[in-house]
Amino acid sequence: MKVDLFATPSGIQEAFLKERTAVVIDVLRATSTITTALYNGCSKVIPVVDIEEALSIAKNYDPGTFLLGGERFAQKIEGFHLSNSPREYTRDAVEGKTIIFTTTNGTKAIRKASEARDIVIASFLNVTRVCDYIKEKGQDLAIICAGTDGRFSLEDILAAGAIASQLKNELDVKLDDLGLAGCFMYEKNRDNLAGILRNTLHYSRLVGLGFDKDIEVCLSLDTSPVVPVYRDGVNLTGVHLL
Amino acid sequence: MKVDLFATPSGIQEAFLKERTAVVIDVLRATSTITTALYNGCSKVIPVVDIEEALSIAKNYDPGTFLLGGERFAQKIEGFHLSNSPREYTRDAVEGKTIIFTTTNGTKAIRKASEARDIVIASFLNVTRVCDYIKEKGQDLAIICAGTDGRFSLEDILAAGAIASQLKNELDVKLDDLGLAGCFMYEKNRDNLAGILRNTLHYSRLVGLGFDKDIEVCLSLDTSPVVPVYRDGVNLTGVHLL
Repeated sequence: MKVDLFATPSGIQEAFLKERTAVVIDVLRATSTITTALYNGCSKVIPVVDIEEALSIAKNYDPGTFLLGGERFAQKIEGFHLSNSPREYTRDAVEGKTIIFTTTNGTKAIRKASEARDIVIASFLNVTRVCDYIKEKGQDLAIICAGTDGRFSLEDILAAGAIASQLKNELDVKLDDLGLAGCFMYEKNRDNLAGILRNTLHYSRLVGLGFDKDIEVCLSLDTSPVVPVYRDGVNLTGVHLL
Repeated sequence: MKVDLFATPSGIQEAFLKERTAVVIDVLRATSTITTALYNGCSKVIPVVDIEEALSIAKNYDPGTFLLGGERFAQKIEGFHLSNSPREYTRDAVEGKTIIFTTTNGTKAIRKASEARDIVIASFLNVTRVCDYIKEKGQDLAIICAGTDGRFSLEDILAAGAIASQLKNELDVKLDDLGLAGCFMYEKNRDNLAGILRNTLHYSRLVGLGFDKDIEVCLSLDTSPVVPVYRDGVNLTGVHLL
């Protein structure tokens, strides 16, 4: 199995994705939040790029059946129900509801992946289940990190490395250079991810905004059995692999 | 000092470079070869992107005063005097001559860097001297890796990490996420660079073509006291810092 890792969505050719499973990662915090929402029973997540698009889609839903969620500049969007904190997406808040969701980097990466044969959402929360899904599909892989403002973001690379590390222990995997780097860095830092991330851009920005508890949630390994799968270019629904 | 690391030249804004020192790295093999040529007394290196441009510039020189060097698909270009192997750029071959030089990834990266305030060429061969030059200039840094065919190339990131590692031991340095990753990977692998590079794309491609000895030369730390400096958007000349 070939595994190629991209630090940001830019520059990936759509033709490259056609026969691949795409795995989209935005550890802090979009893909951690999506996974949490689906684990807690929301009916689906609709990832959208623009706030306007989110508001427009919301008009198709009866009040009480949907929630608007996401962030700009790491903060809740005016008029939205929920921010981009996984801790807000409790069962009480989301069960049975449709989440219309937009974030700065993560939802763009999901849209970019939409040409792939299969598209799943990963974070530290569901590494093992994502690997199970990838093995079941048996396709070559494109792991697409959201990055931060178009730049390499280390927390995403470490989560990609966690997936690559687990796959190479079980399969004959051919990693590209960035995949090898991510795998090495994850394996050397798995016992203290916060240590290596302490000086990184997005992590320290979130700490500065007081989001320490979100970070702690987002760096927890395998706390969710759900694999969010993107279907029909519109919806994310959760596949539970138990 | 801010140090930002780019895995490839694409996507770097020219305005970002204006007040920075740019350090261009293509370990296998362009920047190792340029450093070697200047160490061995060539009068200058003219990096060009196209073969046609190289041939056109050569017309301005008398026979015997210049050499055409470089590669396409890692092999010598038809009609050129030298390939992209540092081992060909001996004092006997290059002393006093102008080298007109074109490679697949490296010379493009040099051109991309041309908007920076100062531009130097680095490889493992001159890490310490490049750091001396950077400290003397005192500007923020953009380390621009050539990459391989537009993708992240681990050998370049390790050399960038060697520079970042040395700078942070001596200065108050703020590394971006990729800089932190490069630094970590260099420090953990400095005693066996070939070990971590064995499965990487460009390294294994060169091994497959029989270039093992070139690789050995290119992974040697601090064998050259020369810092190639790009001047006037045209020429690379060597600054010897002893």
